[in-house]
Amino acid sequence: MTSAFRREHDLLGDRDVPADAYWGIHTLRARENYPITGRSIGSYSHLIVALALVKRAAAEANRQLGDLDDRRADAIAQACRDIEGGALHDQFVVDVIQGGAGTSTNMNANEVIANRALERLGQPLGAYAELHPLNHVNMAQSTNDVYPTTLKLALTFAIEELLDAMRTLQQDFAAKADEFSDILKMGRTQLQDAVPMTLGQEFRTYAVMIGEDVERLREATALIREINLGATAIGTGINTNIRYSRLVTDILADLSGVPLVPADNLIEATQDTGAFVQLSGVLKRVACKLSKVCNDLRLLSSGPQAGFGEIFLPERAAGSSIMPGKVNPIIPEVVNQIAFEVIGNDMTVTMASEAGQLQLNAFEPIIAHSLFKSIEHLAAGCRTLSANCVRGIEANRALLAERVRTSAGLATALNPYIGYENATWVAREALRTGKTVSELVLSRNLMTESALAKVLSPEVLTAPRAV
Amino acid sequence: MTSAFRREHDLLGDRDVPADAYWGIHTLRARENYPITGRSIGSYSHLIVALALVKRAAAEANRQLGDLDDRRADAIAQACRDIEGGALHDQFVVDVIQGGAGTSTNMNANEVIANRALERLGQPLGAYAELHPLNHVNMAQSTNDVYPTTLKLALTFAIEELLDAMRTLQQDFAAKADEFSDILKMGRTQLQDAVPMTLGQEFRTYAVMIGEDVERLREATALIREINLGATAIGTGINTNIRYSRLVTDILADLSGVPLVPADNLIEATQDTGAFVQLSGVLKRVACKLSKVCNDLRLLSSGPQAGFGEIFLPERAAGSSIMPGKVNPIIPEVVNQIAFEVIGNDMTVTMASEAGQLQLNAFEPIIAHSLFKSIEHLAAGCRTLSANCVRGIEANRALLAERVRTSAGLATALNPYIGYENATWVAREALRTGKTVSELVLSRNLMTESALAKVLSPEVLTAPRAV
Amino acid sequence: MTSAFRREHDLLGDRDVPADAYWGIHTLRARENYPITGRSIGSYSHLIVALALVKRAAAEANRQLGDLDDRRADAIAQACRDIEGGALHDQFVVDVIQGGAGTSTNMNANEVIANRALERLGQPLGAYAELHPLNHVNMAQSTNDVYPTTLKLALTFAIEELLDAMRTLQQDFAAKADEFSDILKMGRTQLQDAVPMTLGQEFRTYAVMIGEDVERLREATALIREINLGATAIGTGINTNIRYSRLVTDILADLSGVPLVPADNLIEATQDTGAFVQLSGVLKRVACKLSKVCNDLRLLSSGPQAGFGEIFLPERAAGSSIMPGKVNPIIPEVVNQIAFEVIGNDMTVTMASEAGQLQLNAFEPIIAHSLFKSIEHLAAGCRTLSANCVRGIEANRALLAERVRTSAGLATALNPYIGYENATWVAREALRTGKTVSELVLSRNLMTESALAKVLSPEVLTAPRAV
Amino acid sequence: MTSAFRREHDLLGDRDVPADAYWGIHTLRARENYPITGRSIGSYSHLIVALALVKRAAAEANRQLGDLDDRRADAIAQACRDIEGGALHDQFVVDVIQGGAGTSTNMNANEVIANRALERLGQPLGAYAELHPLNHVNMAQSTNDVYPTTLKLALTFAIEELLDAMRTLQQDFAAKADEFSDILKMGRTQLQDAVPMTLGQEFRTYAVMIGEDVERLREATALIREINLGATAIGTGINTNIRYSRLVTDILADLSGVPLVPADNLIEATQDTGAFVQLSGVLKRVACKLSKVCNDLRLLSSGPQAGFGEIFLPERAAGSSIMPGKVNPIIPEVVNQIAFEVIGNDMTVTMASEAGQLQLNAFEPIIAHSLFKSIEHLAAGCRTLSANCVRGIEANRALLAERVRTSAGLATALNPYIGYENATWVAREALRTGKTVSELVLSRNLMTESALAKVLSPEVLTAPRAV
Repeated sequence: MTSAFRREHDLLGDRDVPADAYWGIHTLRARENYPITGRSIGSYSHLIVALALVKRAAAEANRQLGDLDDRRADAIAQACRDIEGGALHDQFVVDVIQGGAGTSTNMNANEVIANRALERLGQPLGAYAELHPLNHVNMAQSTNDVYPTTLKLALTFAIEELLDAMRTLQQDFAAKADEFSDILKMGRTQLQDAVPMTLGQEFRTYAVMIGEDVERLREATALIREINLGATAIGTGINTNIRYSRLVTDILADLSGVPLVPADNLIEATQDTGAFVQLSGVLKRVACKLSKVCNDLRLLSSGPQAGFGEIFLPERAAGSSIMPGKVNPIIPEVVNQIAFEVIGNDMTVTMASEAGQLQLNAFEPIIAHSLFKSIEHLAAGCRTLSANCVRGIEANRALLAERVRTSAGLATALNPYIGYENATWVAREALRTGKTVSELVLSRNLMTESALAKVLSPEVLTAPRAV
Repeated sequence: MTSAFRREHDLLGDRDVPADAYWGIHTLRARENYPITGRSIGSYSHLIVALALVKRAAAEANRQLGDLDDRRADAIAQACRDIEGGALHDQFVVDVIQGGAGTSTNMNANEVIANRALERLGQPLGAYAELHPLNHVNMAQSTNDVYPTTLKLALTFAIEELLDAMRTLQQDFAAKADEFSDILKMGRTQLQDAVPMTLGQEFRTYAVMIGEDVERLREATALIREINLGATAIGTGINTNIRYSRLVTDILADLSGVPLVPADNLIEATQDTGAFVQLSGVLKRVACKLSKVCNDLRLLSSGPQAGFGEIFLPERAAGSSIMPGKVNPIIPEVVNQIAFEVIGNDMTVTMASEAGQLQLNAFEPIIAHSLFKSIEHLAAGCRTLSANCVRGIEANRALLAERVRTSAGLATALNPYIGYENATWVAREALRTGKTVSELVLSRNLMTESALAKVLSPEVLTAPRAV
Repeated sequence: MTSAFRREHDLLGDRDVPADAYWGIHTLRARENYPITGRSIGSYSHLIVALALVKRAAAEANRQLGDLDDRRADAIAQACRDIEGGALHDQFVVDVIQGGAGTSTNMNANEVIANRALERLGQPLGAYAELHPLNHVNMAQSTNDVYPTTLKLALTFAIEELLDAMRTLQQDFAAKADEFSDILKMGRTQLQDAVPMTLGQEFRTYAVMIGEDVERLREATALIREINLGATAIGTGINTNIRYSRLVTDILADLSGVPLVPADNLIEATQDTGAFVQLSGVLKRVACKLSKVCNDLRLLSSGPQAGFGEIFLPERAAGSSIMPGKVNPIIPEVVNQIAFEVIGNDMTVTMASEAGQLQLNAFEPIIAHSLFKSIEHLAAGCRTLSANCVRGIEANRALLAERVRTSAGLATALNPYIGYENATWVAREALRTGKTVSELVLSRNLMTESALAKVLSPEVLTAPRAV
Repeated sequence: MTSAFRREHDLLGDRDVPADAYWGIHTLRARENYPITGRSIGSYSHLIVALALVKRAAAEANRQLGDLDDRRADAIAQACRDIEGGALHDQFVVDVIQGGAGTSTNMNANEVIANRALERLGQPLGAYAELHPLNHVNMAQSTNDVYPTTLKLALTFAIEELLDAMRTLQQDFAAKADEFSDILKMGRTQLQDAVPMTLGQEFRTYAVMIGEDVERLREATALIREINLGATAIGTGINTNIRYSRLVTDILADLSGVPLVPADNLIEATQDTGAFVQLSGVLKRVACKLSKVCNDLRLLSSGPQAGFGEIFLPERAAGSSIMPGKVNPIIPEVVNQIAFEVIGNDMTVTMASEAGQLQLNAFEPIIAHSLFKSIEHLAAGCRTLSANCVRGIEANRALLAERVRTSAGLATALNPYIGYENATWVAREALRTGKTVSELVLSRNLMTESALAKVLSPEVLTAPRAV
């Protein structure tokens, strides 16, 4: 009869782990130490895949340097490929919030990969004399270079998905800008009526805004391509071959398809979390913009009767359990909330980064957790905003036209022709009496009808004047 | 053959929902609209139980006011009790981050309760003509009073668990304070050696600190006992009986065992999220303190050779995948990270609160999500800190004694006897030569040996002098 | 000829200070060490007055305990009274941002008071053999109890001014609530038209909100009345008489008129900054509310034509350098910005608090600076909001009345009479056709004209229905 | 007899301004509306100079386009040059915290420049018929393009000073790294002894860290060189000549020496504050790093007896009013506090940015205020850290050498030679017995003395091994 457990050993003594678990004693202790969120690192698939890539790259580098034999190197590489392909993610059971600077994540990976490799070699789980989690899988590595490298690689993957979602949203706004390019409306500053613009110009702004954020995010991503593999414990590269750092980085770049480069100063790179702070700051920027855009969408669609009422968002759900017929701007609202979360996450990242001491930042796991949440939720937010809101927006053309026609704000355009003093009189009088700017100008013969028509044409109102 | 789906209808049209789902069309739409985190509200068991309690209280109030017949009221009440008992939480499938001010959470509850009640009545799921999610389960309610009330009740439950964990931690620190009450050590200000104290006094501080936070948290909890049931849509109580608000609040207080009271001004209470901001601020305070305590534990246990080395934390895991024999302060580290998360969550709550507009705050779901995370993770952090760290702390008695014996900081105690100038000379000379304060004082005959011994006794050094 | 300088001495050597400066060598070094903001602590008059009160209380306690002779005690007391009366604040020249846990602030006070006392005694400035900044002015004190005590006392004074400003604002909103009590309008949730309320109810909310914050702020103030005088260096009370702590606290309470109490555990009280974090959190709450109110005022006054246009804010300035006749909601805007600053300050306080180590928090000066700014700016914001905005707000009565008359939102009130289904039809049809709810109900004979009139009367629409 | 006042007029009526004030009625109203901080915009000299440059560039562009005559253009340009040279900054009296999106700052500039120009033309102050603040000084401009452009230019100037201070600090750390390059010490991870490194490597890290931040800050600065002059009210360029935007940008680039470029989309650029958020995020990154470095300096210098005691910071002040001979790390402490302030300021910037609505962000003044404070205080912090701390740091050579000699952490280096198991035994035994790693290895004949000496040589311990 087979036992349900196998015995493993570490610094602190012996422990039984489930016989069929790919993880081992270090992971077992981590589970006991960190019963925090109930969410395990296996739920971050990008992180698990990146871990496997890093371990595979290390095995290959060690093989090429003559430190790891082909048989073990092949078994490790095959185990990693299995994980890259989606296998065994459920064996990554350490909590996403954990102490120890990511050691438990690294240990979990070492154990799962060792046991999968042993399985591939026809050995029983736990036969570490044959292939050892630390001696072989973790060879020439320390959590302190493996973990930040893995994190950077995983973030690169995650950001690609966010960038895709942002580009789609950008395109959806641009399409609306085209659709609305002929609709004149009143622009507003400080929530007060200002001067005319087109609804197309308003939506073009959102497309441009998101497009710029795509660029900024790409730039921030470049910063996280600088990795510290080969740094080992504190960046001095103790116990590594002098050729290892460059070699393993090149192999990892090749395996992952990401143009990774080694940091110039591995000691600095091992303790510094500046790139994460900067990335988080850019995510916060993205969040601010998205929130501002959603605030605008909610404002512009406010009403339907007693609000701005300029656009209609697609109806996605009954808005109220008590008010019949009410529909609310729920999709922008959920994006606003994601933005607030991302801004809070940035504060967490900031505090964790500032708290790093001497040769290592022990708080990288919460940085990882915060960044993954921010990226994933922003991507989800962009996707639902695109699909369930922006694409279906329609303009309240009649109302917009009427508002421009009657707006006192048109008086601004008359400044160069009738002077600031007269224009002020026209604007105030229009508000007081409800008469249009045109009516007032003509009533006082301030301009001819044809001249006025030209000045108040959409093309003239919404762009600089030709010479 | 039974169909796998049933058809439901709402404002926007017809949709098929799985035939065996207790949730209905409103929930279906919410799932499509909010594919954000993958975590559903059912994972907040306190929230689900609180929802059921609120719905049960409302049904009972409506029955007493003659608006709901006994048969339906009983069925609803039974369905709610089932959920309070732990049933059907997996039917609460809306994402924890959602738009719509919690409408989807309320709708999910209305539907699950209605269908469970129908089942109890021997009716098929979806037979809403018999018992309707809105007309009956949601009678005299709006999301805008149900949701914040539910949230407050659920927070009350969750905070009780946090308070328990904090009290245990307080006791554990107090026990250590007793254990260490006779161990003299050097206190430090600004990381520089100051004057003596006992290690017991140092640990007593942590017990007191956490005890004070328990008090502050209890006070903040009192603020969230003020609820707005009966406010309905915007606080004017439209469509409710004038006796309803007081009645339903009393019933809910009775059912839940929580001394809830109705807000004085229901309009204000419906749009105001100040109590959540304040609660979050107190949680942030708790986080700051816990983080400070953990920083201290990590400092005091730093070393083992090249650090402070004053205390030993229990060994919980091998600390390094590369450095043999290394053990790290991983439990305090995970609590630090929870603290950083809570501080970030507070920022999210703040932004969501500030963004409320006019008669409602549409962003309460992210407030709820942030607060639940903060409370649950703080409780988990306190528990692991108690069980896996504080209880096992030991003192490095020999080192502490030697440090006091040789400390230049003892010179402070001599001020009243030999004067500030002489004391300065003693302190500087002790640092320069490595001689003890006693040696130097006696070498210059500044005090007699017996007088000196009295002044430098632990009792005198660590307390005000008796008259 | 008199020299322009006098020579002073400290631990590090000799330095010349201006002959007529009341401050001395410690202050001189602080100025050189902290050339940060250009703003000196003398600009916080509450802090300077509180410092003088603390020093006077200490001198009196020392006199009563027999440690300080009457001549010196009197001179010190007189110097302190001069400063309390407004003299010599320009001699407090240390930068508001400073290292050293407030030591430089304490030293600055010791020196100015000593020299003023010497002057009162007919001695030249700097004649410290006669009356010494440390031996006499600072007797039985440490920065570590003087500074936090001073800060708490000063904050108490500052908060009184804020409370005054808040109460005035509360009254101004309440007066507007009375004035607008008969004006019916549409309430909004999620920026969408909801159900009717009165403009008076809307403004009453703001009065209630601010009134609640007054209560919360008063509660937080109570927490900062617990002081640690007598703690000296680390809270053990080294070098103090066992009666000193209680005595000096009582005297200070008496002199200041503030009911101060000694902390139960002086060691804890010396290192703990929880009360500041909590106070800052409540200030953040106040900021959130004020910002929300100002957001509402800006929304409600948006337009004048293409916005909500429900209220008119008083015109306080020409709004634009280019748009004639434009007037903007500039007073709410400045209050919004103060709120954002206060929220940022809270983050600063949080980080400074979390960073405290072992027996002291070295970062209290930035906590002080942040709190003073928050309190002073909030008070200024409330005052300008009262005087320059709220009192002059007027309602757009005609527009509000017309909006209610034509609103589809009235359909909610019909639920109990015509059923949710019919009410939904009415609401949607009203939006589609522009007909009023009344017209549609009567056209289909859903209710009688008299019944309808009763249901749609303001009293019924804006309150729960009588039994 | 000359009157003490002159009368001016605006939209709201007539007001008397002091006869000798260069500012006018708009500024007068701003002072009354914003009595917030007591600090006026004139205290930001970079902002005032940038305002003058923008106004001069606009006048020159208007002259070249034929819209402004030479006489007025010359007078305006001369007035601007006066201000650029330092004159009249005391006339910029509007509070730094202000409503109105910067309109009051722009108006203050228009008025001061107009009156200075009038003076130059031999006209009395206030003779606006001759040369008008709005018609001439503000020609073709709106606050909404002038203010953000000015802000960006002023930030560019301010950042140059910060970069200078950072580069100096970087060099000072690099010089220390050279000085300490031969001093072996124990590195630490998670505050626990790890493996050896040199003190030079430790200080090199700080130089590299700050050097990287210099690069990141330069990159963020590039983003704020994109300006929106010519956008006027909302970005449509209403009332400008089509050639104006490009022309005025080129002139301003030429006058200021800053390579400014026009934004691609002026509507987007007018409402977007993303570049400020990103800049603030990078300043936060700088703050995090500086704070981390200062935390390290305080840790490494902790003691002098009961701490790490590895380095000595220069003594800058007596540390305590009660403890003789105590000296504290006050310069790093003040930099920590600046960092906390900057992180708080970033939150303020974030909230202000997120709150922007539609075609303008009304909250740019608090963004400006926050950024200027962050930049100026960081620069001041770097300067005092360089001059008063880093340059004077000395190493505790004897202690560092002894700690390495006796460290159990040396066992890590033996892994490749004696295996992980043996190394673990050596490390634990060294801690248990106090014997050195060398003694233990030799006692068991695990390595020869010569082989051991080679492995434990500083060159081998602190770098990867040669092949």
